[in-house]
Amino acid sequence: VPTPTIFTEMDTLQREGDELEWKESARWVKFEEKVEEGGERWSKPHVSTLSLHSLFELRTCIQTGTVLLDLEGYSLPQIVDDIIERQIEEGMISPDLRDKINFVLLRKHRHQTKKPIHRSLADMGKSGSSCSPGPGQGQAANFNRSTEDLQMKNQSANYGRLRSSLSLQLRNKFMKKIPRDAEASNVLVGEVDFLNKPFVAFVRLAQATTLGGLTEVPVPTRFLFILLGPQGKAKSYNEIGRAIATLMVDDLFSDVAYKARDREDLIAGIDEFLDEVIVLPPGEWDPKIRIEPPKKVPSAEKRKSVFSLNEVGLMNGTAGGGGGLSEDEEMPVQHELGEELAFTGRFCGGLYLDIKRKLPWLLSDFYEGFHIQSISAVLFIYLGCITNAITFGGLLGDATDNYQGVMESFLGTALAGTVFCLFGGQPLIILSSTGPILIFEKLLFEFSKNNGIDYMELRLWIGIHSCLQCFILVASDASYIIKYMTRFTEEGFSSLISFIFISDAIKKMVGSFKYYPINTDFKPDYVTTFKCECLAPDPMTAMIFNGLIPMPDNSSSLNVTALDWSQLSKKECLKYGGSLVGNSCKYVPDLALVSFILFFGTYSMTVSLKKFKFSRYFPTKLRKLISDFSIFMSIMTFVGLDMLLGLKTPKLIVPTEFKPTRPGRGWLVMPFGKNPWWVYVASFVPALLVTILIFMDQQISAVIVNRKENKLKKGCGYHLDLFWVGVLMAACSFLGLPWYVAATVISIAHIDSLKMESESSAPGEQPQFLGVREQRVTGILVFVLTGVSIFLAPVLKFIPMPVLYGVFLYMGVASLSGIQVQYLYWWFWDRIKLFMMPSKHQPDFSFLRHVPLRRVHLFTLIQIMCLAVLWVLKSTFLAIIFPVMILGLMVIRKMMDWVFSQHDLAWLDDLLPEKEKKKKDEDKKKGKEKDKDKDKEKKKSKAEYSDEEV
Amino acid sequence: VPTPTIFTEMDTLQREGDELEWKESARWVKFEEKVEEGGERWSKPHVSTLSLHSLFELRTCIQTGTVLLDLEGYSLPQIVDDIIERQIEEGMISPDLRDKINFVLLRKHRHQTKKPIHRSLADMGKSGSSCSPGPGQGQAANFNRSTEDLQMKNQSANYGRLRSSLSLQLRNKFMKKIPRDAEASNVLVGEVDFLNKPFVAFVRLAQATTLGGLTEVPVPTRFLFILLGPQGKAKSYNEIGRAIATLMVDDLFSDVAYKARDREDLIAGIDEFLDEVIVLPPGEWDPKIRIEPPKKVPSAEKRKSVFSLNEVGLMNGTAGGGGGLSEDEEMPVQHELGEELAFTGRFCGGLYLDIKRKLPWLLSDFYEGFHIQSISAVLFIYLGCITNAITFGGLLGDATDNYQGVMESFLGTALAGTVFCLFGGQPLIILSSTGPILIFEKLLFEFSKNNGIDYMELRLWIGIHSCLQCFILVASDASYIIKYMTRFTEEGFSSLISFIFISDAIKKMVGSFKYYPINTDFKPDYVTTFKCECLAPDPMTAMIFNGLIPMPDNSSSLNVTALDWSQLSKKECLKYGGSLVGNSCKYVPDLALVSFILFFGTYSMTVSLKKFKFSRYFPTKLRKLISDFSIFMSIMTFVGLDMLLGLKTPKLIVPTEFKPTRPGRGWLVMPFGKNPWWVYVASFVPALLVTILIFMDQQISAVIVNRKENKLKKGCGYHLDLFWVGVLMAACSFLGLPWYVAATVISIAHIDSLKMESESSAPGEQPQFLGVREQRVTGILVFVLTGVSIFLAPVLKFIPMPVLYGVFLYMGVASLSGIQVQYLYWWFWDRIKLFMMPSKHQPDFSFLRHVPLRRVHLFTLIQIMCLAVLWVLKSTFLAIIFPVMILGLMVIRKMMDWVFSQHDLAWLDDLLPEKEKKKKDEDKKKGKEKDKDKDKEKKKSKAEYSDEEV
Repeated sequence: VPTPTIFTEMDTLQREGDELEWKESARWVKFEEKVEEGGERWSKPHVSTLSLHSLFELRTCIQTGTVLLDLEGYSLPQIVDDIIERQIEEGMISPDLRDKINFVLLRKHRHQTKKPIHRSLADMGKSGSSCSPGPGQGQAANFNRSTEDLQMKNQSANYGRLRSSLSLQLRNKFMKKIPRDAEASNVLVGEVDFLNKPFVAFVRLAQATTLGGLTEVPVPTRFLFILLGPQGKAKSYNEIGRAIATLMVDDLFSDVAYKARDREDLIAGIDEFLDEVIVLPPGEWDPKIRIEPPKKVPSAEKRKSVFSLNEVGLMNGTAGGGGGLSEDEEMPVQHELGEELAFTGRFCGGLYLDIKRKLPWLLSDFYEGFHIQSISAVLFIYLGCITNAITFGGLLGDATDNYQGVMESFLGTALAGTVFCLFGGQPLIILSSTGPILIFEKLLFEFSKNNGIDYMELRLWIGIHSCLQCFILVASDASYIIKYMTRFTEEGFSSLISFIFISDAIKKMVGSFKYYPINTDFKPDYVTTFKCECLAPDPMTAMIFNGLIPMPDNSSSLNVTALDWSQLSKKECLKYGGSLVGNSCKYVPDLALVSFILFFGTYSMTVSLKKFKFSRYFPTKLRKLISDFSIFMSIMTFVGLDMLLGLKTPKLIVPTEFKPTRPGRGWLVMPFGKNPWWVYVASFVPALLVTILIFMDQQISAVIVNRKENKLKKGCGYHLDLFWVGVLMAACSFLGLPWYVAATVISIAHIDSLKMESESSAPGEQPQFLGVREQRVTGILVFVLTGVSIFLAPVLKFIPMPVLYGVFLYMGVASLSGIQVQYLYWWFWDRIKLFMMPSKHQPDFSFLRHVPLRRVHLFTLIQIMCLAVLWVLKSTFLAIIFPVMILGLMVIRKMMDWVFSQHDLAWLDDLLPEKEKKKKDEDKKKGKEKDKDKDKEKKKSKAEYSDEEV
Repeated sequence: VPTPTIFTEMDTLQREGDELEWKESARWVKFEEKVEEGGERWSKPHVSTLSLHSLFELRTCIQTGTVLLDLEGYSLPQIVDDIIERQIEEGMISPDLRDKINFVLLRKHRHQTKKPIHRSLADMGKSGSSCSPGPGQGQAANFNRSTEDLQMKNQSANYGRLRSSLSLQLRNKFMKKIPRDAEASNVLVGEVDFLNKPFVAFVRLAQATTLGGLTEVPVPTRFLFILLGPQGKAKSYNEIGRAIATLMVDDLFSDVAYKARDREDLIAGIDEFLDEVIVLPPGEWDPKIRIEPPKKVPSAEKRKSVFSLNEVGLMNGTAGGGGGLSEDEEMPVQHELGEELAFTGRFCGGLYLDIKRKLPWLLSDFYEGFHIQSISAVLFIYLGCITNAITFGGLLGDATDNYQGVMESFLGTALAGTVFCLFGGQPLIILSSTGPILIFEKLLFEFSKNNGIDYMELRLWIGIHSCLQCFILVASDASYIIKYMTRFTEEGFSSLISFIFISDAIKKMVGSFKYYPINTDFKPDYVTTFKCECLAPDPMTAMIFNGLIPMPDNSSSLNVTALDWSQLSKKECLKYGGSLVGNSCKYVPDLALVSFILFFGTYSMTVSLKKFKFSRYFPTKLRKLISDFSIFMSIMTFVGLDMLLGLKTPKLIVPTEFKPTRPGRGWLVMPFGKNPWWVYVASFVPALLVTILIFMDQQISAVIVNRKENKLKKGCGYHLDLFWVGVLMAACSFLGLPWYVAATVISIAHIDSLKMESESSAPGEQPQFLGVREQRVTGILVFVLTGVSIFLAPVLKFIPMPVLYGVFLYMGVASLSGIQVQYLYWWFWDRIKLFMMPSKHQPDFSFLRHVPLRRVHLFTLIQIMCLAVLWVLKSTFLAIIFPVMILGLMVIRKMMDWVFSQHDLAWLDDLLPEKEKKKKDEDKKKGKEKDKDKDKEKKKSKAEYSDEEV
């Protein structure tokens, strides 16, 4: 039976005017929080630093004081009576002290409570310093004001209803930090004038009992430690109090305290604690510094296991070496891909297993979605999805001459997303347009335009071929090869995509300076000399022009010679054969610069708002909200700025009606008629490229989503995923919608917004990650909402393109450096940064502890070179085989096995499957040998750390 | 006699192939640096966390092992012989082990050395993994490669000259971290197969001796700790080795080790160490975390004094309260102004004392300036000065219609600065144009322009009056009143100046949007319809115009009707009576937006470069350089960008010849002739304002420069300073140059660049601040260089004004938030930030520990209100009495004594002089009472902390 968690409160005896009272001075849930006397506030939770001295004094106290275990106690007076009785019995105090001690121990308890801000603001002016001449008294007065008098009995009589409900609320807020099963331990220390030797008692009650206002929170008391002593040693008593309080919240000692049969058990517990204790040398540390709670502390189990080996924990500075058991042999935990990727060798074997694995969860996939957290997740992901749909829609429209625009992007996202979330193997994956697909479409469109092939029909056939190829991959369990995809490949792939994003965004931006050239010769004073006039062609030319080119229908009645040439626009002027004369004709003022400001502003605002999450301002929830909505807020701000300026910046072209973006196309693409027959067959080749691309893109994202760190319980379905992606490829091709694959960044955001954490965590303690709310509801809702959003079209046309480029720049930079996702990001960028850092400033990455810097640099250099080669290839005519090149990365990774040791690769990358297997075999062998050795040496030494380290 | 500092190196016994060798595994100068086995590098210095267990084991080792004190040792073999002999004598080992132990202890030592980057890059490709199948062996191979074999004897034979000089250099680099008087202590631990119980020896040599390659650096060895033990407990031996190593570098224990007469003294030393030790509970801390060295550690003296009281140190978490000695009574150290500001009551008494104080230093003020550090200080401050001169010159030119421009600014700065640095009381102060003076000049110029008074003459008379008033202030020791100037006033003053800077910069920027309006109706396609034509007036009007207004001389021959109106510029067109017709006449394209980009770019680049100092990239020195030159680099970058664009942005107007900026004025201003006589008298009143302003501005800066934190040794001279500022006022007025006072920010930068730090500091230890190189040379050089810079004029005209506005915005923001100066900045801004932080996120400011949050907020609110009132007043016609309002701040501060307790004020602000005095008196009284109490209670308890706390 696990013992309850202990909450400890320490009260010290203080003289308040003429009266004595117990004042709360510190509390422990796991870490110490101290009452800042002057500041009238709780300190930040910190690690309790104790003095060795006080621990030894505490040991003496337990040895010599009264220890009452399993005392039947129902009220404080009765318990106090019992303690005093026992002490008198044992002749430790004289009976005439009974009343005095009783009196002191039953003084009222005053707790430090946090006041709501409106009340403390109201208190601001009150009780100035005029009435409090000395600091000591001033303080005393302050306590009077700010703390609630929680008297033991007539509590309700003292307080109006409002007040008590307020303070109850506040207490409840802290209650959330205490586990539900918690029991309290109360530590009371103080100095009194009537004792000449300490009065010590350690009490464990048979049943946890609520003892009136003894404890700050309504947690029943189980333990009581009392230390009253002669005057003059208050500091020392406090330290002893802190020592027992710290012990009580220690996992192992609290276990001992619950199970102790007698005084000796407690002493042994203290000794065990002392054995494990970590010591800081006095010359290297200032005891006044409060140590922030660490991110992680060793679990009680681990400590127990170490302890049972009768050896103190591995110290951080341990000089490694010695025998074959150095710290360095620790290998990083390899991420396991599990049986989902096993090669079955049967037709559709993987798909069958996937369905078999996912089917039992189908019902729970729906009812588990109904949780308050889902709402915020849906909103957040919805926003991400429409931002993506708008941005990619805009860019796709750009790249394909509006054959696929924002309207298609919205519809496609809605259709593909909903279907995938309903039937896919891993419904947490969010489908979206992704960079590689965009690039492929761009190249394809250019190719077909240059070769006079109908783009939409070609695309349809590629889609059909690709779909069939996906089915073949599914049927043959081909997904198993992604086992060979290591961090190296993942990093290479995602970095390349990021670079393309960044360079595209910047190219677009630079392009607008070409599209809207700035007249650098402009002199404000000579504005009169800058003009652009449309001059009519001389009669001769006009006549020829008239004869050769028929006028458009609507202007056929117009006589060219009768035109008011000065009123024509630039386009019209050229159309009618006029010539533009003047030194401002080829310039467009302001637009390029405004575009730049919008572009850069959107980018920097998004970055700043994202970073705001880590600032100290505002409550955590608000900051998280701001950070989550940062892209949306930036877009809104700069759309607003653009509207305010009212300049004719290039805007997102969206249809105002529910019809395809490009006027000439319908909702359905017909498979035959526009291209010669051989195109239908030949499209098999580009389809192969698309298939590889889709396969890589989809499965890399899936691997990342399914990583062990996410603690997914319902399993994954790589084959099932790919099956549906294939089906959707074909469907989207018929409807002329963009193609969709898993989008890494958004999928991770989806997981992040659905993660479950342990509810109550002690102040200062990091909440524990329990897993992810795996279900299909949020995904489906997101995409249904996206579908409904096509009616947003009238609003979307206000978005200037430079703002979207800014968002793209952000997405590229974010996925490169891992601003967006905290716990899962690429080391690649970090390793590049290492080149620029002197080694003493380098962060304490685990791989730097284990791999020599020059090997790290070599690894990074190889990666950079790979990327450079890919980048160059991408810029040539080879761009179309881009997806195949990613496969090249895996080959290079394979070759790196010859250059780097498995040890180094394990730290810098992951191991490849066979190697890993071999390694395990070796380990096993070694393990056996070690076991033998162990048996031999067991008598000699108990210090074997292999369990912990391998 | 102080004992030498100890450097400890710990070597562990390792099997290298078939051979045994001692491998360096950690070292301590003050903090621990560990060899990262895998990473082949030194870890960051960290606090040695020990286990209590290992300390007790060490104690046992010393109790049972061999202790040889003051052994005569000249070589390692002889010392080893002596140890073994002793052990055999005492029957601790059998004689047949002699050779084996001897063999092991004389194995060669291999040290971890850092390789230069070019060599490690060359090593990158070498020895791939193919030859090292397992991680264990792979590592072993690595060691072979990367470490130097420092064999005991034939060291020189093994190495070429280049190699050894290289490694010597590297070793010398580390040598700088070790104090010159240091002696080494060598710890050797290892497990061997021939022993069945540990072989322990602690040796102190009579003389520190260099024992061959035993130690990594050429530091003579004084102590030797050897622990060889049976196999299987390597970890435990390592921990013991770390424990003794940590003890040896402890200030108190090393003292004990040097003076110990026998084993018992050492044991007592360990016990004392144990008594002081700080303990972290195992459940709240992960021993694997390396603790960064703290900023400050308690000094040995303090530890001794605490120790002598036989009580453990005050723990950080100490629950306050108990008696009257709570932690909270600690008061912050008040900054003392010293006797320099005493009121002498004699005529020129203060000035006389100042001269008397400064005269003896005059010679050293010059020869102490000749130091390498001065060069970088001069360069840095010179850059700051010319930036300031350019910026303020530009703005002054703007504000005074070029009566004082950049040329005057340079000359004035050079003149005033040189004189002040030669004769001033505090030559570290840098004179400069400051914000308040700029504002005053602006108001004065507007006033005289509006009232038809000659500005330069009025200004001269104000200068003369002001100079005389300064003399009166000097003669009457008036500077003593700045004792009443507390942090509150300083903050109010500097914040107001900052706000004015910021708002002015932004106003100027917004102004350029008005000056260069953007045509928001512009449609790129209809460029043909946008023009601005100069139309000739109709003949009627032209004739009237012709008759009424005579043509300018140079165009008198011109007939207006014969003008080519379309070729005229905007100005000319209007001049000749033409009218501007067209929809682009009132617009100027691009300039406003480019100005904005330049403005904002300069600001953000400066901020980023300043912050770069705190990044991890590049060596510290380079980063400091980038940070120091950030303003210069930003200006250069954006001047370059502006030149690249080639747009007609507004530029800094500088004369290309050595003549006053404004054509109409000469170098000397004549006192009489242009204004009516009463102006000469009446200028007394504005002079009074200037005097107050100068007095405040000068003395506030002086107080900040002379703060105790700067550890100045040569004293200051407030009266002497003011005297010279007065003289310079008059001189500058006669020459028509700007007025100069001490500039806080630059002066602090001056001090910062001249600060002396302790040379050798242990790795991880903060270098100690020793003081400032107080001299007159750097200042004089800076200003002479500034004077020479007027020949830079041809270059300066390329600087666009928006860039300077950006610099101004930066200066405002920096002095508000304290980016520029790290150790001396205003809490005001921090306190404002507190409003927006939930209390759990608030930083651990000391005042928050001692003053309730609502009192802190109240204090801040009062400050904000004061500033708001000042701001509103500044915007009305009352602006001219601005300097007087600053006095108002001091009055309000005085009144705050009624609202806040002295305790709170001491934490949030400083105490006013009388109050401080009273407080001291009270303290004294209390102290005496306490002393009495102490005497009484001495027998009861030794735990009195009053010395430490009050």
